[in-house]
Amino acid sequence: MIAVDLAPGIVPDRDAVVALESTIITHGMPYPQNVETARRVEDQIHKTGAVPATIAVMDGRLKIGLTDPELEALAQARDVAKLSRADLAACMARGGTGATTVSATMIAAAHAGIAVFATGGIGGVHRGAEQSFDISADLTELAQTPVTVVGAGAKAILDLPKTLEVLETNGVPVIAYGQDALPAFWSRDSGLPAPLRADSAAEIAQMHLARQALGLPGGQLVANPIPASTEIPREVIDPIISQALAEAEAEAQGISGKSVTPFLLQRIFELTEGRSLEANIALVLNNARLAAEIALELQTKTR
Amino acid sequence: MIAVDLAPGIVPDRDAVVALESTIITHGMPYPQNVETARRVEDQIHKTGAVPATIAVMDGRLKIGLTDPELEALAQARDVAKLSRADLAACMARGGTGATTVSATMIAAAHAGIAVFATGGIGGVHRGAEQSFDISADLTELAQTPVTVVGAGAKAILDLPKTLEVLETNGVPVIAYGQDALPAFWSRDSGLPAPLRADSAAEIAQMHLARQALGLPGGQLVANPIPASTEIPREVIDPIISQALAEAEAEAQGISGKSVTPFLLQRIFELTEGRSLEANIALVLNNARLAAEIALELQTKTR
Amino acid sequence: MIAVDLAPGIVPDRDAVVALESTIITHGMPYPQNVETARRVEDQIHKTGAVPATIAVMDGRLKIGLTDPELEALAQARDVAKLSRADLAACMARGGTGATTVSATMIAAAHAGIAVFATGGIGGVHRGAEQSFDISADLTELAQTPVTVVGAGAKAILDLPKTLEVLETNGVPVIAYGQDALPAFWSRDSGLPAPLRADSAAEIAQMHLARQALGLPGGQLVANPIPASTEIPREVIDPIISQALAEAEAEAQGISGKSVTPFLLQRIFELTEGRSLEANIALVLNNARLAAEIALELQTKTR
Ligand SMILES: [Mn+2]
Ligand SMILES: [Mn+2]
Ligand SMILES: [Mn+2]
Repeated sequence: MIAVDLAPGIVPDRDAVVALESTIITHGMPYPQNVETARRVEDQIHKTGAVPATIAVMDGRLKIGLTDPELEALAQARDVAKLSRADLAACMARGGTGATTVSATMIAAAHAGIAVFATGGIGGVHRGAEQSFDISADLTELAQTPVTVVGAGAKAILDLPKTLEVLETNGVPVIAYGQDALPAFWSRDSGLPAPLRADSAAEIAQMHLARQALGLPGGQLVANPIPASTEIPREVIDPIISQALAEAEAEAQGISGKSVTPFLLQRIFELTEGRSLEANIALVLNNARLAAEIALELQTKTR
Repeated sequence: MIAVDLAPGIVPDRDAVVALESTIITHGMPYPQNVETARRVEDQIHKTGAVPATIAVMDGRLKIGLTDPELEALAQARDVAKLSRADLAACMARGGTGATTVSATMIAAAHAGIAVFATGGIGGVHRGAEQSFDISADLTELAQTPVTVVGAGAKAILDLPKTLEVLETNGVPVIAYGQDALPAFWSRDSGLPAPLRADSAAEIAQMHLARQALGLPGGQLVANPIPASTEIPREVIDPIISQALAEAEAEAQGISGKSVTPFLLQRIFELTEGRSLEANIALVLNNARLAAEIALELQTKTR
Repeated sequence: MIAVDLAPGIVPDRDAVVALESTIITHGMPYPQNVETARRVEDQIHKTGAVPATIAVMDGRLKIGLTDPELEALAQARDVAKLSRADLAACMARGGTGATTVSATMIAAAHAGIAVFATGGIGGVHRGAEQSFDISADLTELAQTPVTVVGAGAKAILDLPKTLEVLETNGVPVIAYGQDALPAFWSRDSGLPAPLRADSAAEIAQMHLARQALGLPGGQLVANPIPASTEIPREVIDPIISQALAEAEAEAQGISGKSVTPFLLQRIFELTEGRSLEANIALVLNNARLAAEIALELQTKTR
């Protein structure tokens, strides 16, 4: 009925595999920067001793790992759908091509037996959600799919206190790596305490296995602070986020719904003179390395 | 412990079965119009080549398909409970009689191995839910029970933008049938784009099977626009809904909680001089036919 | 990978076992009152003919039932973590010690095959949650873990109407015991009607088994009114709760987040001159007895 293709050389039961999402390729940056970054992230995982598996739907087939020509093709494709839990199966059923967001990547990883997934940052509760009810499906996915997701926290354009509340309501562990504070994507410190802290990949792997042994269905979020050398401190980025939000509201035509996030990210890129994108790349590489270390620990502990 | 009765002649593994809810019989219209409508809906499914199974709890037994005398008895019964996920089992445990709403009908259908269910429209986020937190259990059910539900969208007295947001957060596919716009129950166009679109019953069946193959636990909502000949266009019905809402608020005793929806539907019936009920019957018949076509496609594709 | 210790003499498949949470011991009252109360609650269950199993994590081991020395040790321990779904596994993975809240106790009970759990009252939607999004993980747990939880309703410092709405959205049966009104922890009557009512332990056990037979994954909440002799009537406690809430808001430093609930409970203790704690102990004993009766009914009906 459906086609799931494991890329050559990926054996989830044997290898330390790290899943990667593909919206960063199709919607995160222009060609060829997107394919170069994707290769750097895969290389980072290889160098750490693990195996990367970028997830996407191509011509209706769920790809667990992309070959080099597939990666190149996806990076140049146009009008690629962004897939989440609600539309992953629909895209496959009609033979379409789509890039996976956090929720669809988690589903694909779990389906293929991959326990760890590296991304930039997860979605969450949007600012103004008390009126709009706009809450990312990523938070629901973390409640039900047993994958350890390594990100630099939730995206800082979101409402972080409300995002933490929903994660708590959903029973999702939020683990800051190596510090007490929750990171905030471009900044190392959100100003909010993280519910949990871990100081090694081994500890995170133990938590993953303990959840599995208890039969808990959901995943855990590892919030890995961006490297200090590339962070944009909170006192710099916060006024920029506020300005971008104010501009979105002031737009004559009104920026609303799904076009708000791309507008905000573009304005933050411009207002930081490109630093936001550099930081984004640095934090993804950093998350890929930690995810690889966790996958290696899981491999050791379960063999 | 519990009794589940399959009506004579219904074999879910063999037949193309369409589940039907029973609150439309007990709470939707007066006797004998309710039993006549129920029979017309069942006939529509028979004529399309599928088998109807109206769901209800009678004397503690979960009925999957009602015989003609049972349908007649339910249509004349008084003080019948409206059952959702929270109270279906309680009603069975105490030997009671109850009509199933969307969530309980989905549970019963999935329990009996029935994949498709036709209804009028689903529940959703109530207007004012940002203060009242009043959100239908239907939205939670769609997230977890693998049934394809064919309705004319969510009921138009609800807050449709928020309903779409919650469905997205819950990972539920919302598929407009044959058009890009989300229908709005009495009207063909809500003014909101639908997240997904399908143009044939075969395509919807494929999506259902792809979700099943991926192991996704939830269902999908097919939003089937009311036939053009019977629709009440948005510019006509919207002011009427607003008036009914204003009247509910202005009532001396105050209409609140569970009595708001019946009050609104009654006032809309009066203000449209009965057209709202005619439209309701027409859209249910329309949904029954599409649901039967989907069930037949599923039967073909899985045999 | 993880260690789960059944205390000597507890055989969930054979005995009528009642799970008990442990935050009431570590965070509910000072030593030695806490250990005395815990023993009285266990005695109440023994006297009714059932077997108590207090749940906690000690040195990384999930304890299903505490021996007397373990109970004593937990009652004197300091800085014990409060564990919910999000951090239960993390505490076990790192060999820590923690007291279980409602959600973690339900998980442990279900894991050990225990169907009934007695507590004081569950968490719910916090007042102001329309802005803070602060909603207890207990409500999510009840939606997914098949344990019958006996409490005196949700804690009265919460927003009870919103708590009922979320429970309905989540498909959780809320069953008032022996009356139509939802109890409100310290008071027998919240002023809100309960969605369901049961008048005997046997009836509640039937509902539990009917849910199980239908394959419904969640639990049910039995809201057991505090004994009349020890209740603090609503007209007495409501102004006190309002005063405590006003004081929390007026505090110079501002009481916020997780420190609000302990502050409120302490102020209510002071303002009622200790009656709130006496009432709390009385209602827990009352819940323990009803839970034991339900466990005995379940034992009878399934043997
Ligand atoms: Mn959204
Ligand atoms: Mn409601
Ligand atoms: Mn909270």
